[in-house]
Amino acid sequence: MITVYGFAPSGNCHKVRLLLEQVGRDYRWVEKRSDDGSTRTAEMLAKNPNGKVPFIELDDGRVLAESNAILHWIAEGTSFLPVDPWQKAQALSWMFFEQYSHEPYIAVARFICGWTPIDSPRRADLPRLRERSHQALAVMERHLSAHAWFTGDQYGIADIALFAYTCVADHGGVSLENYPAIRDWLARIAQTPGFVPMPEPDAAAAALIAQSN
Amino acid sequence: MITVYGFAPSGNCHKVRLLLEQVGRDYRWVEKRSDDGSTRTAEMLAKNPNGKVPFIELDDGRVLAESNAILHWIAEGTSFLPVDPWQKAQALSWMFFEQYSHEPYIAVARFICGWTPIDSPRRADLPRLRERSHQALAVMERHLSAHAWFTGDQYGIADIALFAYTCVADHGGVSLENYPAIRDWLARIAQTPGFVPMPEPDAAAAALIAQSN
Repeated sequence: MITVYGFAPSGNCHKVRLLLEQVGRDYRWVEKRSDDGSTRTAEMLAKNPNGKVPFIELDDGRVLAESNAILHWIAEGTSFLPVDPWQKAQALSWMFFEQYSHEPYIAVARFICGWTPIDSPRRADLPRLRERSHQALAVMERHLSAHAWFTGDQYGIADIALFAYTCVADHGGVSLENYPAIRDWLARIAQTPGFVPMPEPDAAAAALIAQSN
Repeated sequence: MITVYGFAPSGNCHKVRLLLEQVGRDYRWVEKRSDDGSTRTAEMLAKNPNGKVPFIELDDGRVLAESNAILHWIAEGTSFLPVDPWQKAQALSWMFFEQYSHEPYIAVARFICGWTPIDSPRRADLPRLRERSHQALAVMERHLSAHAWFTGDQYGIADIALFAYTCVADHGGVSLENYPAIRDWLARIAQTPGFVPMPEPDAAAAALIAQSN
């Protein structure tokens, strides 16, 4: 059995749930908020010294952290990870793009809008974060204008990694209006077998998001 | 033949050179500065729409971007990438840690110190970047206090990924004085077969670094 430590509305955590559902693996979900220090208690730091979620724990106590590394491990031997080394490297390339050029802008803008006070000084960062978010989306739109998926010719873990925060970009004030190929790709993903949607933010976060945009 | 497009003093680019040297693969290096727009010309954007280096190009024109994805591709079938899926996932976990929790602080502090004017407004970010750099180093120190390498029981691509900017952390004003296990690990890497050191910054960058710290 795999135990997932995660915060339900986090895209990084949802990636893991989505793939586990789609490959049909049993798992147990342990909810840990990442906005109130719950991921940095002594017990949690003993499991993941970087103090973040998601991470997974096996029955023998072994731990694996970093959402995209977890996706790679779960996907080994399934159709979600290409066998061909070049295609596998392309999938990883998009996953590193996601963590370096996409998530730090789109996910952080969303977090600031929904999970920080309306007068947080971090909100001064939003214009820059939104500008960089659109740069990442433009790179994705260009790829999706010529390809159905990010991983070779079928849906896979690079799509899951990029789906997680793209599908809720509007929570951070980043509109997908000018990205028709991205919107079509999101719709295709929602039709894949075993798909589960991102959980909605709770009422407090939803109210902050509504006030922010 | 592999063509590497890279900026010599960039740690992300040096990763690729170091592994190519250590596995003994032939390659051609095309120098492209990343601080003057050379990576964002129309010709370069046609190859890598994300406008960054490093990326590699094969003789048939295929391109692979993102330093750690390139490492993974080059390392396939060599001792630098574990075969065991769990160990391979652990290597990837450290590589995603590097790109999300390490490089955006240690490499960016170094870039600001060496490659922006001494009166750049970006220098106001340095205290925060240095604080986060030390958080990443503390996670590495904890691991290296109990393990010789980041990839199972031998030197591999996770070590190369983390080596690149750790070995020049002091350029950004981030001292390794309090991390003896990290310093021992850097020394072990410098003794591995085929090792090539990070190129020194040019005179202009060296002068800015000296003024910054």
